[in-house]
Amino acid sequence: MSWSTNRLTRLLGIRLPLIQGGMVYMSGAKLVAAVANAGGLGLLGSGSMRPDLFRDQVRKCRGLTDKPFGVNVPLLFPNSAEILDIALEEGIKIIVTSAGSPRRVIGKLKEHGCTVLHVVANPLLARKCEDAGCDGIICEGFEAGGHNGREELTTMVLVPECVAAVDIPVVAAGGIATGAQWAACMALGADGVQIGSRFAITQESSGHPDYKQRVVDARFGDTMLRLKKHVPVRLLKNEFADQVAALEARGAEGEELAELLGQGRARRGMLEGDLTEGELEIGQVSGLIDDIPTVAEVVDRLERDFTTAIQRLGQP
Amino acid sequence: MSWSTNRLTRLLGIRLPLIQGGMVYMSGAKLVAAVANAGGLGLLGSGSMRPDLFRDQVRKCRGLTDKPFGVNVPLLFPNSAEILDIALEEGIKIIVTSAGSPRRVIGKLKEHGCTVLHVVANPLLARKCEDAGCDGIICEGFEAGGHNGREELTTMVLVPECVAAVDIPVVAAGGIATGAQWAACMALGADGVQIGSRFAITQESSGHPDYKQRVVDARFGDTMLRLKKHVPVRLLKNEFADQVAALEARGAEGEELAELLGQGRARRGMLEGDLTEGELEIGQVSGLIDDIPTVAEVVDRLERDFTTAIQRLGQP
Repeated sequence: MSWSTNRLTRLLGIRLPLIQGGMVYMSGAKLVAAVANAGGLGLLGSGSMRPDLFRDQVRKCRGLTDKPFGVNVPLLFPNSAEILDIALEEGIKIIVTSAGSPRRVIGKLKEHGCTVLHVVANPLLARKCEDAGCDGIICEGFEAGGHNGREELTTMVLVPECVAAVDIPVVAAGGIATGAQWAACMALGADGVQIGSRFAITQESSGHPDYKQRVVDARFGDTMLRLKKHVPVRLLKNEFADQVAALEARGAEGEELAELLGQGRARRGMLEGDLTEGELEIGQVSGLIDDIPTVAEVVDRLERDFTTAIQRLGQP
Repeated sequence: MSWSTNRLTRLLGIRLPLIQGGMVYMSGAKLVAAVANAGGLGLLGSGSMRPDLFRDQVRKCRGLTDKPFGVNVPLLFPNSAEILDIALEEGIKIIVTSAGSPRRVIGKLKEHGCTVLHVVANPLLARKCEDAGCDGIICEGFEAGGHNGREELTTMVLVPECVAAVDIPVVAAGGIATGAQWAACMALGADGVQIGSRFAITQESSGHPDYKQRVVDARFGDTMLRLKKHVPVRLLKNEFADQVAALEARGAEGEELAELLGQGRARRGMLEGDLTEGELEIGQVSGLIDDIPTVAEVVDRLERDFTTAIQRLGQP
């Protein structure tokens, strides 16, 4: 199947309308380059990188692929301005911003000739991104792993809402790990998809092997959304998640929660493999992830299953 | 588009693989017959009917259509056995059970030659339904209006989970109001869809006009899931929903909640049009519902938009 007239492949200069989400502790040069070489857009996950590490990863990635790649920058993180400066210095041309408003940074990014997409969880923010000059939006549903929106809009509802709200390309995210789910999102009107969890659980991801195996073992209902009143985040149930739930249930305030969360729990869980006391972010789709293949194998399956899904649709 | 080889149309003897959910206070003879005459399967919503009213509605419906129709029976409701007996006496051949286990009733229903589908919210229950002898399952995602599952699995994730779990036909429900969403669910591997909210907000639905208008006015994020620890239910935010939320937040026990819920709040909201003190059940997709058309118009739009969606998919 040729995607040469697709709006997202044209915007980003890639073969497939497929973005690998820039996930903390997962998305280093190795994963990003593998996705780029397989035809998608890889995103470095700068949210878990110190500036020097980020610069190093950009350079490493450039050594591993001659295809375009980008970076995800959570704007509310303390060093986001520094990360953006490094990205520009290093000649990155595709920036995905999240967790904050793109309005304050987009002028500078566009001056440098960047293509900018922003991650949203509702159609009102999608409209604001379009007004601010973003080139596209990534709308991420309730089922997505990690940080999440307050409205709890699911991908099935959010994508049509956003497609109706803006004229710029819309990328669907949340709950997409298979070619059938990819096809479903295209049927909803998306121009492409962003896939996180499925790429987190690959050979090239920098997550800890024990974390990856824990996700493989996960079944339906093993994730849940926590911290709904603060920063909603989807994670696997474990002792850490229970501690968070207990604090929430007795109405803990921000400071107490911040103390629990501020001990590098995400790093401990996902990078160091502490499956009980660490924070294990992953999407609801983890129940459908049953192995740890290479990125090339994942993309190959996605393409084959996409074709099967639309053939099934065309001959009802 | 012909659906003559589709498993659901063959199982139910209908033209389109499209079921109208049997919703309390919405799904009387008028709505059900209109859906049947438009080519889908209408379901009487027995959950809000006394036995004598139910029998009356079955007979009325038979006078309005010569097409097949069925009934939804929530098994945990006190009069469900009586309702099932009436359904059999009146010659109903399609029974959708929900809220409970079909195991205790399916023997009798199959003896009477009924086709039985059960509503589930996770793939484990789907498997149990198949083992119990159900002819199909309806899997309903987190975004659905009214009663809901505890695992919070969204339609995008739940449908592939259930398709992988069983060999019997799988009907997708939750978050489906447009032809694009219908096509998306078929891409996920569903054999058909069940649509609730969109049919609740039609001319033929027996909901109160003020309730219907409130749904038309609703935008994204106006519904939420409440009573998560008891019987999760998705409803529009209003004073009643706030009261429920306040009780939940201070850890109210079942009895106190039952008192608040036991005052016919659903009837008051949806049938009598009390928009502040009544319970206004509706799906998350209400943000995409902008008018109160006839059922024929809804089905016509669904068919047209379905075709548009799959044409878009076939030419990427």
